[in-house]
Amino acid sequence: MNKKAIILLSGGLDSITCVAIAQSQGYAVHALSFDYGQKHNVELECAKKIAKTMNVSEHRIAKIDLGSLFGGSALTDDNFNVPEPKNVDEIGKTGVPITYVPARNTIFLSYALAYAEVINACDIFIGVNALDYSGYPDCRPEYIRSFETMANLATKIGIEGGRINIQSPLEKLTKAEIIKLGTKLGVDYSLTSTCYNADSHGTACGKCDACLLRLEGFKQAGLQDPIQYQPKV
Amino acid sequence: MNKKAIILLSGGLDSITCVAIAQSQGYAVHALSFDYGQKHNVELECAKKIAKTMNVSEHRIAKIDLGSLFGGSALTDDNFNVPEPKNVDEIGKTGVPITYVPARNTIFLSYALAYAEVINACDIFIGVNALDYSGYPDCRPEYIRSFETMANLATKIGIEGGRINIQSPLEKLTKAEIIKLGTKLGVDYSLTSTCYNADSHGTACGKCDACLLRLEGFKQAGLQDPIQYQPKV
Repeated sequence: MNKKAIILLSGGLDSITCVAIAQSQGYAVHALSFDYGQKHNVELECAKKIAKTMNVSEHRIAKIDLGSLFGGSALTDDNFNVPEPKNVDEIGKTGVPITYVPARNTIFLSYALAYAEVINACDIFIGVNALDYSGYPDCRPEYIRSFETMANLATKIGIEGGRINIQSPLEKLTKAEIIKLGTKLGVDYSLTSTCYNADSHGTACGKCDACLLRLEGFKQAGLQDPIQYQPKV
Repeated sequence: MNKKAIILLSGGLDSITCVAIAQSQGYAVHALSFDYGQKHNVELECAKKIAKTMNVSEHRIAKIDLGSLFGGSALTDDNFNVPEPKNVDEIGKTGVPITYVPARNTIFLSYALAYAEVINACDIFIGVNALDYSGYPDCRPEYIRSFETMANLATKIGIEGGRINIQSPLEKLTKAEIIKLGTKLGVDYSLTSTCYNADSHGTACGKCDACLLRLEGFKQAGLQDPIQYQPKV
């Protein structure tokens, strides 16, 4: 039987790459996605397509009502607009972005930890990377390490002599390096969605932080982004 | 304006005591309860009564579908029965109990952390105590401290020079000491529910781990437990 890994699968470029990495290392992938009232719900449809296409062992979707419970982020709260930076160099230069969802990765990893305990998996993959921790506190390597320490004190696996590993294989990679690595592993990036502000058909805006970083990543990797963008006006 | 605290309010004896402690220290209490498919749902009704009677500033209830998502505990899964130990000395002697819910406190504290960030509170109270960490990994002091370290790396408050404190004021107290302290602070323990196995009217079984520890606590404190128990058969 293959060793099992939990992968936090958002439906974006980073998480699909994590699925490919875990599978290339021989893990049976148990994907976990969240329906947390995100405005860009097309993500979840992408996560389902990815899970199916990449033949994961299991895909669970946890419905968590973060938006209406807590509010306070441009990603879940209709009172905020997703910002459109002028260019890619502007991103992450002004402290914690308005698109930060309070304690989001901590909540996601906590669910992944519960899932890991129930199915007796010791590895949890999360697709945080270098570009993200310019602004988001819960994407930084020191955060991931401290979550791992806590996880081993929190759980039955941890106190009974096992070890929970929080794997963040994209941690030190740029978007271009991630795209090149995924492409080498056969990832089909047309299955993914990245945009914070996609239209009702799921077509990316091409203007938000996430779109600009994605487009720049493909450009630097010398590859064509296979997804559709809204026409520029 | 009073400083704010988030209190994890289960509706039990420990969490009501935490509300009283926080209020006695001048905090405005923001209570957070969870509807997580627990069999002993009377807890949630108790939490609502406590919040109202003790005039908390706000009471939010997060619905999280742990039971059907993950299963694996006698508290949420109908395939398990809640055990009935022969006596109070038997409790916590046989490793992690079957009533352990995987990563439960980690998930609860993660939500509390999100809530704290949104309302700009720096203090989170959790009613873990000495008796609990005989068996539950996520009730131990070293777990609480490691969650706190992680929380300060995870959040906007933490990286912008603030500090999140996870307060566990019952950590070193026995049940009897908690009951005596709460009674001194004017806590009405008739508002609480502790039983893992209450009947449809919310009447406690008097036989599960939680009931035995509660009854023993009142006995050692020299006080009368004001709640009703099912008649012994």
